[in-house]
Amino acid sequence: MTSTRVHLFDSTLRDGAQTHGVDFSAADKTAIARALDDLGIETIEGGWPGANPTDDRFFAAPPHLTRARLAAFGMTRRPGRSADNDPGLRALLEADAPVAVLVGKSWDFQCRVALGVEPEENIRMIADSIALMAREKAEAMYDAEHFFDGYADNPAYAVACVKAALDAGARWAVLCDTNGGTLPHDVERIVSEVVAAGVPGERLGIHCHNDTDNAVANSLAAVRAGVRQVQGTLNGLGERCGNANLISLIPSLVLKMGMDVGLGPDDLARLTEVSRALDERLNRAPDARAPYVGDSAFAHKGGLHVSAVEKDPRCYEHIDPTAVGNRRQILVSDQAGRSNVLARFREIGLEVDPDDPKVLRVVEEVKLREFKGYAYDGAGASFALLARRLLDHVPDYFRLDGFRVIDERRWNAKGELITLSEATIKAVIRGERHMAVAEGNGPVNALDAALRKVLVPIYPRLADLRLVDYKVRILTPDAATAAITRVMIESADTGGERWTTVGVSSNVIDASYNALHDSITYMLFSAETVATADAAE
Amino acid sequence: MTSTRVHLFDSTLRDGAQTHGVDFSAADKTAIARALDDLGIETIEGGWPGANPTDDRFFAAPPHLTRARLAAFGMTRRPGRSADNDPGLRALLEADAPVAVLVGKSWDFQCRVALGVEPEENIRMIADSIALMAREKAEAMYDAEHFFDGYADNPAYAVACVKAALDAGARWAVLCDTNGGTLPHDVERIVSEVVAAGVPGERLGIHCHNDTDNAVANSLAAVRAGVRQVQGTLNGLGERCGNANLISLIPSLVLKMGMDVGLGPDDLARLTEVSRALDERLNRAPDARAPYVGDSAFAHKGGLHVSAVEKDPRCYEHIDPTAVGNRRQILVSDQAGRSNVLARFREIGLEVDPDDPKVLRVVEEVKLREFKGYAYDGAGASFALLARRLLDHVPDYFRLDGFRVIDERRWNAKGELITLSEATIKAVIRGERHMAVAEGNGPVNALDAALRKVLVPIYPRLADLRLVDYKVRILTPDAATAAITRVMIESADTGGERWTTVGVSSNVIDASYNALHDSITYMLFSAETVATADAAE
Repeated sequence: MTSTRVHLFDSTLRDGAQTHGVDFSAADKTAIARALDDLGIETIEGGWPGANPTDDRFFAAPPHLTRARLAAFGMTRRPGRSADNDPGLRALLEADAPVAVLVGKSWDFQCRVALGVEPEENIRMIADSIALMAREKAEAMYDAEHFFDGYADNPAYAVACVKAALDAGARWAVLCDTNGGTLPHDVERIVSEVVAAGVPGERLGIHCHNDTDNAVANSLAAVRAGVRQVQGTLNGLGERCGNANLISLIPSLVLKMGMDVGLGPDDLARLTEVSRALDERLNRAPDARAPYVGDSAFAHKGGLHVSAVEKDPRCYEHIDPTAVGNRRQILVSDQAGRSNVLARFREIGLEVDPDDPKVLRVVEEVKLREFKGYAYDGAGASFALLARRLLDHVPDYFRLDGFRVIDERRWNAKGELITLSEATIKAVIRGERHMAVAEGNGPVNALDAALRKVLVPIYPRLADLRLVDYKVRILTPDAATAAITRVMIESADTGGERWTTVGVSSNVIDASYNALHDSITYMLFSAETVATADAAE
Repeated sequence: MTSTRVHLFDSTLRDGAQTHGVDFSAADKTAIARALDDLGIETIEGGWPGANPTDDRFFAAPPHLTRARLAAFGMTRRPGRSADNDPGLRALLEADAPVAVLVGKSWDFQCRVALGVEPEENIRMIADSIALMAREKAEAMYDAEHFFDGYADNPAYAVACVKAALDAGARWAVLCDTNGGTLPHDVERIVSEVVAAGVPGERLGIHCHNDTDNAVANSLAAVRAGVRQVQGTLNGLGERCGNANLISLIPSLVLKMGMDVGLGPDDLARLTEVSRALDERLNRAPDARAPYVGDSAFAHKGGLHVSAVEKDPRCYEHIDPTAVGNRRQILVSDQAGRSNVLARFREIGLEVDPDDPKVLRVVEEVKLREFKGYAYDGAGASFALLARRLLDHVPDYFRLDGFRVIDERRWNAKGELITLSEATIKAVIRGERHMAVAEGNGPVNALDAALRKVLVPIYPRLADLRLVDYKVRILTPDAATAAITRVMIESADTGGERWTTVGVSSNVIDASYNALHDSITYMLFSAETVATADAAE
């Protein structure tokens, strides 16, 4: 009886960084590593020290992790050189990461053609390099590149590479389907043969790519054949068609195959959030059709499905959506909108009689505005203001008579290129007219600065307001530069409170102003509500 | 020895029409049916006659098909009524389609809970309805709804439903994983057991959904266990997470499992075109990461990969991309080595001595600019201009002395909110100074309009330039409104050529201008290069 413990290894920051169109900054990498750590992933591959400036910056100041360990990636030593003198291995040793992952060939054809190295020397390269890392690091791992193609061509050589790594002290030998062309039944057969050849599954990992749409199935097949480490990426990021998607793999392993991957039920219930946060960071729309976590994954169109699913969810749901943090969606149903909005009211502390006709007005207004491009799901502060405006009252702390933003680019007398942004605003505050002008680093920055000039003397607490994130999404890309734009701004105060607001317009500056206006209003309104609540006690 | 002939059944127009956000017109359906027919799909399920006006319109005047047969979908008769008197079956009989597909329960729990029907009556419903269709139509088929969940719960009953359909004259009984929750090893085991129970695989079909990311693997597993009809949709359309993707399944069945699906090599080489034409019709961007047919499916980024793939494509390609009508792509990126850049030079038709020291200068410049936030990976036109500027020469078609963009928001005399964008540019073209002012729907749109006013009279071909996509990404979100911004613009001409350019700046307007400038320069430069090449012939 083999163990049911399966170890998770995430490569979002290394193989995932190869995704066409994805370009992580060091700050992105740190934030993603923290999210993976919180989720409960055992090992996080942070990148390839020495390969590019971003990875160097990341490993120079790696995030402090509480549950996970950080891995650094590199290659086995160069041919005809000692491991100790190899500059690539040196960079790995110097990287601040307890785990070292070394990729090396396991296909003799590749050794000869791609590398120009004799297969015997390749085995020495693996053994020497792994031995060095096993000695100097907490853990060493061997990525057997092209293992499945290599095994199909020359099984004895492929297995010899794996054994060389394990004999040299590797904790794991990871079988990589580098070109992604192997089908699940071949993965299962080959892994079974490797285990039968005397390599314990407890020391084997699997690393799949999605070139035939089977990366997840291939990983599951390998686990069934005995492998006990699974590699993948969040949302299946990765070059070409992507890597095995951990977000799909984890619930199948846990909920359907009874494996222990080191995540508790509360961790599992965060999968949807983690998946969507990554898309948010990449500034792309989450895939509504994503297995388990997509917005449509548990969506039921009206009619038979809905009534059946309400009689017994097993009729049309393969798992309970809340197990992965997702939710059932009944499409085209006012009832769903209503209960959703009521649930949101409770979240923001608004007590409303569910039968109050104003509730329906909020539902209709939210629907209308979401149709126009607003997104209240991620902008709680704008939702709270909208709801309170319709149900109750929010004061106009300031009323803008207008603004003008000028962006100029020209060459000065010395021939230097100059870019300048200047904003003028005219506002009425407590019955008095104010105006101000300010410069900034870009048009929205200038607008923000001008607003502050006028507002801070009157509302001093706004001196504590910081804008911590600013995102722009084009909602109608077909319209190109005339497209509708959605701006989301995350703000914070010095006490650590954070809130997000949204603005929509065909003009990016105008959309930004709308989100800024909500941000400032929310801060002032919250302070007032708290003050009133305090006074009432 | 079982036959290698596998029959393809497409449900894009029926199950695929359930996709959230997809809304086929009857004309769409006709066009897609023609494309499926051309491709060589055996059976095309056109819809559900009587269920909605679109499907009625489609079956009232179905397209003339040359290779495929049309199928109409419906349900088994209602309980306690004869098949001849069932209005749903009547609509099916009247539909102009030689094949009838009837869905019916195969899980006794579902009969009782969802339908409120005794399991014995359900079997009579299947037998009666299939018998009617087998008599009146060229072919009858039974979709065994919830077959896998039903089999797990009560195997004898699930098999009894399948046998009842086949005994009543169904050509095929299709095993449906309706909730999509079954894993590949369970599909393979259950199908094997059904075949062992005396149901010939030659009369079994498979219909999978992608709720665990295994729809393709589940379909392949069923074929291995003996099933000889495979159902799916183009690009995996379908409700929730979609159906099994025929575009992924077909090449794996043919190229990797040696099956005969009725498509010749020329048909197979049209898969990429068929997949992208569907997205075109749905007005959505094709998935670059789609297995086999995506734009990135054979894209190479890492430097080592590129040099190896040029030595022997087997090193990093699991099939020849042209077999499915796709092509190899060499990307430029942060990770790029010299060989990547050299390969890109060849793609853009630049002949350079690999040992030319300028090559290293391009590599260094690309790395430096990517560190600053440029992304040449997705911006081939900006890369081509950068390379040619460093290696050779690109004319300055226009030189900007400066621009000024004004965004204004104010209330007019009637109390209406007015947002206005106005751009002024000053440019030197062929030694002459020009200036222009234009309004736009947002600042970048205004800038674009002003540039055109000056440039089109001098370079008339720019009248053909269209901006088809505009993307903004904030690279240093921590800096909030003062952040570095990257703008990518996709442009097209009326001849269908497309190119992408990139601009980076702390000012979103400035970044947009940079990308616009590259877009215009690239169009003019390409035209000139082609003209010169033509003249030289």
